Amino acid sequence: MRVAIVGATGAVGQELLRLLEERSFPLTSLRPYASSRSAGTKVTFRGSPVTIEALPEHGDLEADIVFSSAGGSISKAHAKAWAAHGAVVIDNTSAWRMDPGTPLVVPEINPAAAHAHDGIIANPNCSTIIGLMALAPLHDAFGLERATVATYQAVSGAGAKGIDELTRMTQAALNGEQAEPSAFEHSIAFNLFSHDSEVGDDGYNVEERKLLLESRKILGAPTLAVSATCIRVPTYRAHAEAIHAEFTRPVDPDAAREVLAAAPGLRIVDDRSANRFPMPLEASGSDDVLVGRIRSDASKPGALAFFVAGDQIRKGAALNAIQIGELLRNGSAAPA
Amino acid sequence: MRVAIVGATGAVGQELLRLLEERSFPLTSLRPYASSRSAGTKVTFRGSPVTIEALPEHGDLEADIVFSSAGGSISKAHAKAWAAHGAVVIDNTSAWRMDPGTPLVVPEINPAAAHAHDGIIANPNCSTIIGLMALAPLHDAFGLERATVATYQAVSGAGAKGIDELTRMTQAALNGEQAEPSAFEHSIAFNLFSHDSEVGDDGYNVEERKLLLESRKILGAPTLAVSATCIRVPTYRAHAEAIHAEFTRPVDPDAAREVLAAAPGLRIVDDRSANRFPMPLEASGSDDVLVGRIRSDASKPGALAFFVAGDQIRKGAALNAIQIGELLRNGSAAPA
Repeated sequence: MRVAIVGATGAVGQELLRLLEERSFPLTSLRPYASSRSAGTKVTFRGSPVTIEALPEHGDLEADIVFSSAGGSISKAHAKAWAAHGAVVIDNTSAWRMDPGTPLVVPEINPAAAHAHDGIIANPNCSTIIGLMALAPLHDAFGLERATVATYQAVSGAGAKGIDELTRMTQAALNGEQAEPSAFEHSIAFNLFSHDSEVGDDGYNVEERKLLLESRKILGAPTLAVSATCIRVPTYRAHAEAIHAEFTRPVDPDAAREVLAAAPGLRIVDDRSANRFPMPLEASGSDDVLVGRIRSDASKPGALAFFVAGDQIRKGAALNAIQIGELLRNGSAAPA
Repeated sequence: MRVAIVGATGAVGQELLRLLEERSFPLTSLRPYASSRSAGTKVTFRGSPVTIEALPEHGDLEADIVFSSAGGSISKAHAKAWAAHGAVVIDNTSAWRMDPGTPLVVPEINPAAAHAHDGIIANPNCSTIIGLMALAPLHDAFGLERATVATYQAVSGAGAKGIDELTRMTQAALNGEQAEPSAFEHSIAFNLFSHDSEVGDDGYNVEERKLLLESRKILGAPTLAVSATCIRVPTYRAHAEAIHAEFTRPVDPDAAREVLAAAPGLRIVDDRSANRFPMPLEASGSDDVLVGRIRSDASKPGALAFFVAGDQIRKGAALNAIQIGELLRNGSAAPA
């Protein structure tokens, strides 16, 4: 299989390269594409340098699978043309996620949907993936009706520039120096703030709306109710989420724990006596999403509360995209 | 009025001294007490050095008001004796909060309760105060039934040692050095974790239980349902909380905004077009609790979602205690 990565120099692009190596993805060629600014520089893949190319105008990336993570406008403009040249585009931007003809896939949750594509398969937003890794198996078991979610989102969601900014602003703050934010509107040093996406008339921002709409699409649950408050916090690369969830059937927390323990891609970290629960530092670099603080919601009989943490760059983006590629390769509806 | 501060060298004790100056509290004498380790050292008050004393054994602090913030065990052991010597103890520990004979007071919310004391008045826990500053006026207007709360709690909640640890661990992480946590069980550098208090059989930790039980007592709402997830984050001194709230009467967000705008001690920061909402950095040093992201809860008709941030050392502790002292001084049930 010939593979192209569009946006190969970004945080997700770099992780895609690492994962293709790590998981021995059976590719016959690798073409990394980026902006013309980066063209001619090299990335290392399987020990050898590979030259980064600027995106060609004619739309043929000479690839069977295109991993696209260079931003929504590039995917919007080019993905159809790449597909017309025979590629399957696994798109890690928001461009096609809510397009009715484009499947939106988390391989552990709705793998079959991946095969109903018309050349483009969308990778969900990071906070959706990380929350649904726990919510989806609970939905299957108990019938999810409503979830309220408060997120603790790492700076990697804003890409490499977000990561650099956390270091730069924190160092300046420790040195007692003034520094101006650029990747974010506000200082991220020892601070947190509402997600930097546009806020609509209903008071929800775009990130929060994604969590609602993408969850409905992935779970096939058009009446699911989700209210999220998305907050950026000074962590590097793993998102966390505090979730309260209500179901059609009352949920016993032990039964919920059994369901979560059996779910692929999840790891329970829920040691009450040692006060050890999911943490971004532990989730970073892990393929699994961590889930813990599993308990009955004390404010509503039959409801459940829990806390998750997952690597935003990995399962929240690059790993999920690679897993979709593996589904295609296997021709199988079973999760990789 | 003769004033004593027990725990004068701590983060809250230091803020109490600043606030007594700043608010021109009409005191005739000030006696700062701390552990015998600190006895003999000096603090500066109104430009003059004042010598710190070790707590006397006989229980007479020679004060009309004792601000106690040296930990629950000291308050538990001594507060009754201080009161027997004629002082009113304003206790900033958990020792007496849930004692049926001890009022638990937020001056903007239940000032009249302060006058029904028997020598001890309890200051609520920081996350309770900061959340209730917005929830209480909404309760008065619409009848609060249920709240789910996710907190973003600053390290100052663990005192000066928590503040020092955030700096030390973050500096080490930036330098690529290993450092061991001591104030917390886990590294706070670019990380977050479930609150470091004991977790009960129901899966809730002590901090979360305080939010439920103290809210019921302060609001006089014994059936109020609250489920909190309390999370420590790498910020210095202001807590934030994402809150979903359900009421007996359906809440229009504009009506809620009016109620919050009129409430004392609250400041609305809710600029959707500029993406400017409550942030810990802005709340730090402010007497007001900031509230924003005010919107209808998209997951439940008639419910409300919002976000608050408040200075944990100030309104979450020292300021609230001083305001209780001002209530006593004024002999008035009106908030200071």
